[in-house]
Amino acid sequence: MLRLVTSETPPEFTHSGSKRPTITDVARAAGVSIAVVSYALNGRPGVSAATRDRVLRIADEHGWRPNAAARSLRTTTRSIGLALVRGDSATTHPAAFMELLDGIQGTLAAKGLALVLQVVEDHDAAATLYRTWWAERRFDALLLTDVLVDDPRVEALRSARIPAVALCHPGAARGLASVHLDESEAYARTGRLLTGLGHRRVGLVTGPEALDSTARRVSALRAAVEEAGGALVDAPDAATQEDAAAATRVMLTSEEAPSAVVLSSDLAAVTALDVARRLHRDVPWDVSIVAGRDAPGCRLATPSVTTLPLPLTALGEAAGNAVLDLLDGERPVERVVPVGALTIRGTTAPFRR
Amino acid sequence: MLRLVTSETPPEFTHSGSKRPTITDVARAAGVSIAVVSYALNGRPGVSAATRDRVLRIADEHGWRPNAAARSLRTTTRSIGLALVRGDSATTHPAAFMELLDGIQGTLAAKGLALVLQVVEDHDAAATLYRTWWAERRFDALLLTDVLVDDPRVEALRSARIPAVALCHPGAARGLASVHLDESEAYARTGRLLTGLGHRRVGLVTGPEALDSTARRVSALRAAVEEAGGALVDAPDAATQEDAAAATRVMLTSEEAPSAVVLSSDLAAVTALDVARRLHRDVPWDVSIVAGRDAPGCRLATPSVTTLPLPLTALGEAAGNAVLDLLDGERPVERVVPVGALTIRGTTAPFRR
Repeated sequence: MLRLVTSETPPEFTHSGSKRPTITDVARAAGVSIAVVSYALNGRPGVSAATRDRVLRIADEHGWRPNAAARSLRTTTRSIGLALVRGDSATTHPAAFMELLDGIQGTLAAKGLALVLQVVEDHDAAATLYRTWWAERRFDALLLTDVLVDDPRVEALRSARIPAVALCHPGAARGLASVHLDESEAYARTGRLLTGLGHRRVGLVTGPEALDSTARRVSALRAAVEEAGGALVDAPDAATQEDAAAATRVMLTSEEAPSAVVLSSDLAAVTALDVARRLHRDVPWDVSIVAGRDAPGCRLATPSVTTLPLPLTALGEAAGNAVLDLLDGERPVERVVPVGALTIRGTTAPFRR
Repeated sequence: MLRLVTSETPPEFTHSGSKRPTITDVARAAGVSIAVVSYALNGRPGVSAATRDRVLRIADEHGWRPNAAARSLRTTTRSIGLALVRGDSATTHPAAFMELLDGIQGTLAAKGLALVLQVVEDHDAAATLYRTWWAERRFDALLLTDVLVDDPRVEALRSARIPAVALCHPGAARGLASVHLDESEAYARTGRLLTGLGHRRVGLVTGPEALDSTARRVSALRAAVEEAGGALVDAPDAATQEDAAAATRVMLTSEEAPSAVVLSSDLAAVTALDVARRLHRDVPWDVSIVAGRDAPGCRLATPSVTTLPLPLTALGEAAGNAVLDLLDGERPVERVVPVGALTIRGTTAPFRR
């Protein structure tokens, strides 16, 4: 098959060979020339408002659609693909994800790049979709969030040499371009805050366990607590708010209950206040609580929750800029977004013997 | 300019005329024929693994990218566009938005349609983007969320006869295809529940005020409360969780404080428990609380919150199906998604004189 497209023929009017109505059908029905239909559909001058309206109405009635392939010749918008895995943080921590997304899209849109999202069932399906997208040359680069310790998507992207930015530690990106928040520093600081207050048994509720970031959080907080001669009690598989509430309750009712609990999700931290309340534990005097992300709920709770504000919009912006670097041919791309200081509020107090 | 593309020449290898490296450059650098490069880049058999790896590495080093326009000829994926306005519900109620998105994308993806999201600054910018997208024939149909009482996007889509589905009451869609949740029924039921418990002053914290759905919620709850001889106290401009907390406090400390408060957001309802606690009001005995959407936080709070579970995933699925109907030429498209019964938990009790 040979396709011929000239700039004199507006490409959206080429006949696609399907049974969809063509510009010729519309012209015939409207009783005008193809040129008039073309002008009307493209919003160009040269036809009266009345004719334009009539042509648009008839085109609409006939279900006329521009030819998807041909019209693409007119647009050269570069696109970045992101497959969202059902049950990943976009679902379990949507507020955090929207902050991240806001940063990514703002940065890409400012450079005229479009971000395309598609939801898939699991990580293997995402790996397959990434391969398909690349085989079809649908995107200029791909993004990867919620990177696992052993991630089939990373392997798929690496082996096919697909340009991609992984939002994770370079260790998990295994050679892919990477952007990550310095959460190791954040959790180390949290550990120092709590041990500085005299806490020696510290709990950590985070998850899911398969995420690379979970392992790094656990290890950073454990190192800081052990450095002060303390011990970490970790619940690293609390993916949802319900999991986190259950894990907090198990911790607080165990024989060697921690005197301080860090919860990586803001919603989980607010719910931990309710868990403590039902156990008649007075926060912060019986147990200290720290949230791994700030949110209105942390500020409005009673008492208001001490948090580590994660700059997720900044992480998104860094990811957007990493994509731009990658498209500019820069290699290797590795960005780390620093974290700020903890915001001390009403849920942290010195350890009582 | 004349472009010639044959099926014998894989379209992603046509020369775009830009300064980007071409397949010829890659072939020269690798010391192989153009055909070998083409096979390697397309992952087709006929080249050794070693040669393929070398070609991919060299292509990568040269920053080779498939031609954006030409490659589009290979894919005929239909796409649906959605402009997200910064500060709209995707930002203020991300969990609800992700539920909705999950339904839309699941339905479209099952039919091979892609959903493309882009964030814009305000509703006028969204209207402009929708016009541009259509002028460029970037999408087969557009979606509209957070529809305003007087929405510039609705007017833009209507006047240009752009195929679009608005997620709002048909009254606000003004002729566009529409899909909406029967929130009027939901808020009427909530009113009947509360007046049935003897409440005669009922508060409603919702918003933002410019949304068409806000006006409909207020009017449905007011009608139900007035039907029983009661009065509604409304705070219809509480867009964020902080706004909602402030409005709840103002209501509960006013001279004629309501004995029951309905909050359309789940997070706002959970925070209202804290507002009441700080005012030493015992929920549900001093004041009843109802959440307009269910979430883990409502179930895990103390007491757990009575809610109206909104089927947002079902709304998303209905929106996806409405898009499919629209693309199939069906007119007019109007879908209503029914709401279920209230889930009575620990925050609603009979009115105490």
